[in-house]
Amino acid sequence: MVITETQPPMEGDAATSKKAAKKAAKAVEKQQKKAEHKGSTTQNEAAEVDVAEGKYGVLKMIQSSGEHRDRVYVDVKDLGVSLEGKDVWVRARLQYSRAIGRQCFAVLRQTSSTVQLLIRVNEQVSKQMVKFIGNVAKESIVDILATVVKTSSPVESCTVKLVELIGLQVWVVSSAKSKLPLQIEDAARPETDDDPEALKIRVLQETRLDNRVLDLRTPANQAIFRLEAGVCKLFRDILTKKGFVEIHTPKIISAASEGGANVFTVSYFKSSAYLAQSPQLYKQMAIAADFDKVFTVGAVFRAEDSNTHRHLTEFVGLDLEMSFKYHYHEVLDTIGQTFTDMFRGLQDHYAAEIATVGQQFKVEPFKFLDPPLRLEFPQAISMLKEAGVNVGEEDDLSTPDEKLLGRLVRAKYDTDFYMLDKYPLAVRPFYTMPDPNNPKASNSYDMFMRGEEILSGAQRIHDPDFLTERAKHHGIDISKIAAYIESFRLGCPPHAGGGIGMERVVMLYLGLDNIRKTSMFPRDPKRITP
Amino acid sequence: MVITETQPPMEGDAATSKKAAKKAAKAVEKQQKKAEHKGSTTQNEAAEVDVAEGKYGVLKMIQSSGEHRDRVYVDVKDLGVSLEGKDVWVRARLQYSRAIGRQCFAVLRQTSSTVQLLIRVNEQVSKQMVKFIGNVAKESIVDILATVVKTSSPVESCTVKLVELIGLQVWVVSSAKSKLPLQIEDAARPETDDDPEALKIRVLQETRLDNRVLDLRTPANQAIFRLEAGVCKLFRDILTKKGFVEIHTPKIISAASEGGANVFTVSYFKSSAYLAQSPQLYKQMAIAADFDKVFTVGAVFRAEDSNTHRHLTEFVGLDLEMSFKYHYHEVLDTIGQTFTDMFRGLQDHYAAEIATVGQQFKVEPFKFLDPPLRLEFPQAISMLKEAGVNVGEEDDLSTPDEKLLGRLVRAKYDTDFYMLDKYPLAVRPFYTMPDPNNPKASNSYDMFMRGEEILSGAQRIHDPDFLTERAKHHGIDISKIAAYIESFRLGCPPHAGGGIGMERVVMLYLGLDNIRKTSMFPRDPKRITP
Repeated sequence: MVITETQPPMEGDAATSKKAAKKAAKAVEKQQKKAEHKGSTTQNEAAEVDVAEGKYGVLKMIQSSGEHRDRVYVDVKDLGVSLEGKDVWVRARLQYSRAIGRQCFAVLRQTSSTVQLLIRVNEQVSKQMVKFIGNVAKESIVDILATVVKTSSPVESCTVKLVELIGLQVWVVSSAKSKLPLQIEDAARPETDDDPEALKIRVLQETRLDNRVLDLRTPANQAIFRLEAGVCKLFRDILTKKGFVEIHTPKIISAASEGGANVFTVSYFKSSAYLAQSPQLYKQMAIAADFDKVFTVGAVFRAEDSNTHRHLTEFVGLDLEMSFKYHYHEVLDTIGQTFTDMFRGLQDHYAAEIATVGQQFKVEPFKFLDPPLRLEFPQAISMLKEAGVNVGEEDDLSTPDEKLLGRLVRAKYDTDFYMLDKYPLAVRPFYTMPDPNNPKASNSYDMFMRGEEILSGAQRIHDPDFLTERAKHHGIDISKIAAYIESFRLGCPPHAGGGIGMERVVMLYLGLDNIRKTSMFPRDPKRITP
Repeated sequence: MVITETQPPMEGDAATSKKAAKKAAKAVEKQQKKAEHKGSTTQNEAAEVDVAEGKYGVLKMIQSSGEHRDRVYVDVKDLGVSLEGKDVWVRARLQYSRAIGRQCFAVLRQTSSTVQLLIRVNEQVSKQMVKFIGNVAKESIVDILATVVKTSSPVESCTVKLVELIGLQVWVVSSAKSKLPLQIEDAARPETDDDPEALKIRVLQETRLDNRVLDLRTPANQAIFRLEAGVCKLFRDILTKKGFVEIHTPKIISAASEGGANVFTVSYFKSSAYLAQSPQLYKQMAIAADFDKVFTVGAVFRAEDSNTHRHLTEFVGLDLEMSFKYHYHEVLDTIGQTFTDMFRGLQDHYAAEIATVGQQFKVEPFKFLDPPLRLEFPQAISMLKEAGVNVGEEDDLSTPDEKLLGRLVRAKYDTDFYMLDKYPLAVRPFYTMPDPNNPKASNSYDMFMRGEEILSGAQRIHDPDFLTERAKHHGIDISKIAAYIESFRLGCPPHAGGGIGMERVVMLYLGLDNIRKTSMFPRDPKRITP
């Protein structure tokens, strides 16, 4: 039984661990049963000398028994004609393998890259070795020593097209179980319906999320979350360059920030507390504390029982707040420019990720203007009225109206991003600064991507007496917000800001249909696992 | 009453707001009372023509009525001899003002920078104007038009030493209340006791935290939180450069991550959930999902009733996890180098902030080695034993032992940072990979700054069967961690990582004595406000 005797090629100790041996034995047993069933010659083969002995098998669990830094591994994405004829080590997932007769075709995958692997029986490679690789469970991690060879014609099914690997050694580093709850090829199948003959097998959202570790391995998901990291990086880098200071605000708070609705309660030692619905109060305190321009990236919590494509109970807020000299448009322009710079950064540095996502999902390229478009609320109302929608001048926009408006703006101005300024005072929170020139308007704004809101913001009232007046006007119990009001009695510059939903930005930039696609481990009223 | 008639110099509308008028009237009333009390000639002065009319007063609340982008403001830190003779606008805090006879001395402050302001009665400046500025409450925000002049000798009490400002206009943008809960000069007073004559007035930690908005305005606090932003930036930039992907992990979880002790409970719709004590499980799932190297920066929660100088119930975790090929030292080296690069980055880019903190607190420069020092646990035990401490080979280190060890290491190796590898298996969690060569040791490590632990980490067990075995050995109910174990049945590379307490890193880098100094709005068992 050669396989059970196989030595791990690198781990220092001589004996294969009991577990590895047991696993390998099982694998072989399986092979034998299969062979017997087919009436093949396995019994005879097992008796034969295995020319590939010591070149394949299940590696003992890597426990750091030796450093082995001399062994250089090549990344799948770096495999190319420049390596032709070279023998290379690759550690990757076995996406697929199928032994037919004297050879085995396989595909290795690493993040979003794939390469074809071929193992043929020859003087160094035994039939047993070919069968072994054919029986390794999909999604197992393998170490492969292989020769890089040019392909006669491009391999269309892999991302590495001009070369393939001819296997010399095959070692299983970590086995996947043989029955996976979903197949990566199903989860990764393009959602286009151009081809009427195309396989229609899809994996349901719930199945994906229940098995998120597998689902995240699709090329599109690998790309989505790398782009998401890019959104955060760009947001921070652009603002840091503009002189903003990153701060961290507490998530556990003593009083519900916006009146008590939609807030999660936490038991806090012998008392109770709440989870912050936004860092706004703390951003404002940082402004009153002379930090001038601040941003923060962190979890925000909404106990809303909204089961829609765009609501989460926990999401990542990209928040910013900035003091200004005379007009909140200084802030509005800064935020608008930040978005433009971010969109350009994504276009320039994440083109590969955008293309990978596009292979699975229909993604219309995201359009934006520089400088970005700024409309005023009455203009939006006019556009909607012209389109036959009955909307009030002082009403907030409904979600369908926002979507329609997005299409109208796109048709008229050719942009998927715009800022809508001067919301009616009546539909905004008490701390919003009223418009000095129009008693029905306010110094507040929303921003939209593909017709969906991704930022809400305003000039905040920085005068404690006026803030008190406005709170009373809104029927708010002043005693409950005394600390908030008090913080403006220490001298505070005029300021404005806004909060951005990170997952929404990624979803809408890529044109995806559900926010659960852009939250690695999404939380909604019905899901807090995995 | 000239002041009540004063026009704001920039806001568009002609009439001073009622509120501003009322305030200004009060200020004047106060002046008059004071004058009457002293038996001065205010009554006559008020009847006089005010040559400074329209050059000072309380500005109407800035409500964005005009953009006024033509007015250029100069930052205090940029005031220097190159601007000599120029008239400049500055918006800053009035840190101090005192009118004596025909002139008023004042200090303007902006973040950590200060400049002297002098206002003298002359053809353009009236006695009334001098009195006005003398009566503006400390910490109010003012707009000043002033001429930059060279000083005959350096102004030692300000950060801008070579020039001062001669005031031409003075406008109050936002008034502070006249009785502040603490004085910035007290909160900023150096904590050195070299000078026996020095004023000993200190502000208590609790008073500071109760009035954090004021406390944060001290130059040291302005510098501490800018350096903290730098720590996060460096952590992310260094790891991004090494190929790490930033991820976001949920804070609301369905099961207590480490057994249920010290975890906060959240009411979640009709059920309940917990606040994550660490992102470890999610980092590991990201590794199993092929993200290869990941980091995350975010809130972590510990329901520990520990009221010490170094414990918070909510802090910012700098977490990372990385797959490796053969030995967890690949990861250990990466983390160590990340710290070295971070320390160097702070030294290079935050020298001004470090110096500012040093003016208030005794800060011994932080020492580190490149490459960083790595010791093994038995070496630490030997050093402690040599120093006369009775410690067991398989016991964890106590906090006092860790501190002593820090001093011993500093004396012997001249470094404030080191890594301690190979902790006893018995003192680490069940998921820690045992050392393959020593049954009593494990592939785990802590890292220390100035003798205090700032990172804990390990190679994690990636084999589901072995993980089950180890969990059973620890007496853990397997059914409760089934999902965790299951995630390794889908194929997972060997991996290791660690979690860093951000506030601890900043506290210890700067040599501060309390973690509440490095958390902007700290949370402990007794404090969840402001």
